[in-house]
Amino acid sequence: MGTEENKAIDEAIIRRLIDGWAKAFRAKDIDGVMSNYAQDIVSFDLVPPLRYAGIDEYRKPWEETFPSFEGPIDYEVRDLHIATGDDVAFSHSLNRMSGTMKDEQKIDLWVRWTACFRKIDGKWLITHEQVSVPVDLESGKAVLDLKP
Amino acid sequence: MGTEENKAIDEAIIRRLIDGWAKAFRAKDIDGVMSNYAQDIVSFDLVPPLRYAGIDEYRKPWEETFPSFEGPIDYEVRDLHIATGDDVAFSHSLNRMSGTMKDEQKIDLWVRWTACFRKIDGKWLITHEQVSVPVDLESGKAVLDLKP
Repeated sequence: MGTEENKAIDEAIIRRLIDGWAKAFRAKDIDGVMSNYAQDIVSFDLVPPLRYAGIDEYRKPWEETFPSFEGPIDYEVRDLHIATGDDVAFSHSLNRMSGTMKDEQKIDLWVRWTACFRKIDGKWLITHEQVSVPVDLESGKAVLDLKP
Repeated sequence: MGTEENKAIDEAIIRRLIDGWAKAFRAKDIDGVMSNYAQDIVSFDLVPPLRYAGIDEYRKPWEETFPSFEGPIDYEVRDLHIATGDDVAFSHSLNRMSGTMKDEQKIDLWVRWTACFRKIDGKWLITHEQVSVPVDLESGKAVLDLKP
């Protein structure tokens, strides 16, 4: 197969991975989410600390977040762009997370998501990601009400 | 040349690009900074909006930030990791920005930086990046005092 054809296949595989990741997120399926990350994942997550390193450490914020929601989480991946090389790829998108917390507080938040992939032993996995909202540096507040 | 040798060269080129980018940042050289970005850059920056799209739009936050500093900006790129494919690459690092603002306020801030590259007409350029600090979702505040 030519390089272009291989790239189209790899891009389709990554798109399916992201679909599966988002489905697992909606279902609060931690194992399903984690199965998309490499053992040595480095994550710059929405919440502190600056960096999560390794799959065991990065499991913890998921174990805290999912039970804090009452019922399923609505999760949408919008404006997804994927760039695929031979064994390195990245994606970026604007993701909307909404739902009801156990304390009945409603959440409806758009975050920026960058995911970086490597093909390891023939399988694409997320080895790095960054999730964030912008910050108003004068007030020191996160800007949580932006919409695309 | 073999693939591994090519990858080593590409990684060295990207490392030099990042060095040049940081040098331009320290010197408040907007053209020097912008020369590393592709025309269709999509940036998820530290400050609002959610997304900057295109080199002209993304020039504006630099034009606002640089003059707000009194003298040069100190800029350090730490824990830099680069993954290089044939024509797609990404890097992540923790970057420290410090200096004195025109209003004499001191800034000393660690941010997370993810840069995503494509080789376009033989030249590596940043086509996407994300810069952020984590957020305390309960207080709605950006967490600006974290150190690696």
